[in-house]
Amino acid sequence: MGRVTVRGKVLRIKDGSATERVDTFVVEEPLEIRLDGEPLSVTMRTPGDDFDLAAGFLVSEGVVSRAEEITAIRYCAGATEDGSNTYNVLDVSLAPGVPRPDTSLERNFYTTSSCGLCGKASLDAVRTQARWQVAEDGARIGADTLTALPDRLREAQRVFDRTGGLHAAGLFTAEGELLALREDVGRHNAVDKLVGWALRSGRLPLEGTVLMLSGRASFELVQKAWMAGVPMMAAVSAPSSLAVDLAEEAGITLAGFLRGTSMNVYAGRHRILLKKALSAPSAATGGVRSSGQ
Amino acid sequence: MGRVTVRGKVLRIKDGSATERVDTFVVEEPLEIRLDGEPLSVTMRTPGDDFDLAAGFLVSEGVVSRAEEITAIRYCAGATEDGSNTYNVLDVSLAPGVPRPDTSLERNFYTTSSCGLCGKASLDAVRTQARWQVAEDGARIGADTLTALPDRLREAQRVFDRTGGLHAAGLFTAEGELLALREDVGRHNAVDKLVGWALRSGRLPLEGTVLMLSGRASFELVQKAWMAGVPMMAAVSAPSSLAVDLAEEAGITLAGFLRGTSMNVYAGRHRILLKKALSAPSAATGGVRSSGQ
Repeated sequence: MGRVTVRGKVLRIKDGSATERVDTFVVEEPLEIRLDGEPLSVTMRTPGDDFDLAAGFLVSEGVVSRAEEITAIRYCAGATEDGSNTYNVLDVSLAPGVPRPDTSLERNFYTTSSCGLCGKASLDAVRTQARWQVAEDGARIGADTLTALPDRLREAQRVFDRTGGLHAAGLFTAEGELLALREDVGRHNAVDKLVGWALRSGRLPLEGTVLMLSGRASFELVQKAWMAGVPMMAAVSAPSSLAVDLAEEAGITLAGFLRGTSMNVYAGRHRILLKKALSAPSAATGGVRSSGQ
Repeated sequence: MGRVTVRGKVLRIKDGSATERVDTFVVEEPLEIRLDGEPLSVTMRTPGDDFDLAAGFLVSEGVVSRAEEITAIRYCAGATEDGSNTYNVLDVSLAPGVPRPDTSLERNFYTTSSCGLCGKASLDAVRTQARWQVAEDGARIGADTLTALPDRLREAQRVFDRTGGLHAAGLFTAEGELLALREDVGRHNAVDKLVGWALRSGRLPLEGTVLMLSGRASFELVQKAWMAGVPMMAAVSAPSSLAVDLAEEAGITLAGFLRGTSMNVYAGRHRILLKKALSAPSAATGGVRSSGQ
């Protein structure tokens, strides 16, 4: 394992001059997830934390919500011609009585994950599947704690600075303490790895936590947060329209464009505590207009 | 149509003060692609250029390679309860004689697109499917022309600066002239839209062109370039290990980390012409080492 990065030759060109050098690359390899021996899904991922990834994927898809529902996860050997283990095929065993997902083609897994026929139908589907009432979560977070998270996430990333190619997802407490960090070439995988870690640690639903994303917030990522019971999400960059709609629907706090001491809050603003509002209540409603975006 | 962005309220927090403002969001909505009435795939996309997206998706999947193989693309009405058109379901009609893809579950479309069981198997699959010999393409590009493309791409983006949430894919000539630009909340969709435009314009294979990406280069994006016969790719950020492997396999030139006058070349360096190498041949092999990454 430990195949998160590899070294390779590159030709560095600068101002028309070329030099040969060795560079570090993020590894991207397919992972096939099987459920009791049956192929379920294939995702392109960065190797590492594969068991978390498989477990988190099953949480995101509504298959499991407690650690005991998974009895075993193992790499399948013999997937290559010479019989060696590629570590790219995982088999997950579900406990007796856990309903298997419907994997018929009309409703195949990726379709579900990519959210079905239309925005409305998919919102309905998520609402039905989600096992936690995130909206009733009593979590609150200070605005200054929230805007400090991107720096904390970056500090905690071991790989990012070497390759510039990995997305990170970090789970923090409302006090800004890092609980876990996962990285991947795919944003959705980084979140699934985090959620899988939480499932396997018996931490679901993730009450009182903040999910911090190194990139943008899409519908799919909010969906994963909801399935894991995360009440607060923040993204370094922008959310999509459907991400905002779903966050509102779920009662999830969604912030974006966290830069320095500023951010935008798109949904669930009641969870964010303004320092100035506490010392000078009028600032929160009619304060000085900020000039930046 | 024209639902690329929507306006919505956000709470802007800066230095602990909050102000209400209206912001612009990138729209993200699902698009279901049907083939002769049968559901084929669902993708979360930014509305706009949907016909290009559907056509490009079919090129990427190896279903079509010529405009005549598609006889019609139309939005399906009646997808909602009240019978109105969501513009989120497209039906593509293939010409008689064009083989339908195998959509059995074991080999369902998303699995194919995400590349199958393991890296090796998927490289083999792409090599079999690809209809063009990119490696024999005689295209060449000046290093200075290539490093100028990110700025040209950004200038051409109409939406990016307003929302910060869209990926762009631009197709350029080897002289740096923009042929077409497509944007989407998903990188793969932006490329599919571009490829679909090329198919429908009768331009496949895309000999002599450069595909410029606003983000990173994954395996899947190199795969799409190969399926469209694109000989040169450049990404603002990093490629993954498997993206580099596939570019080498295909004979595609792959550059990344384009910043100012510098870049890294990961594969197919023979297509990149160094100005200094032309005037002072020794510079190309033993020139001054650059200090930046």
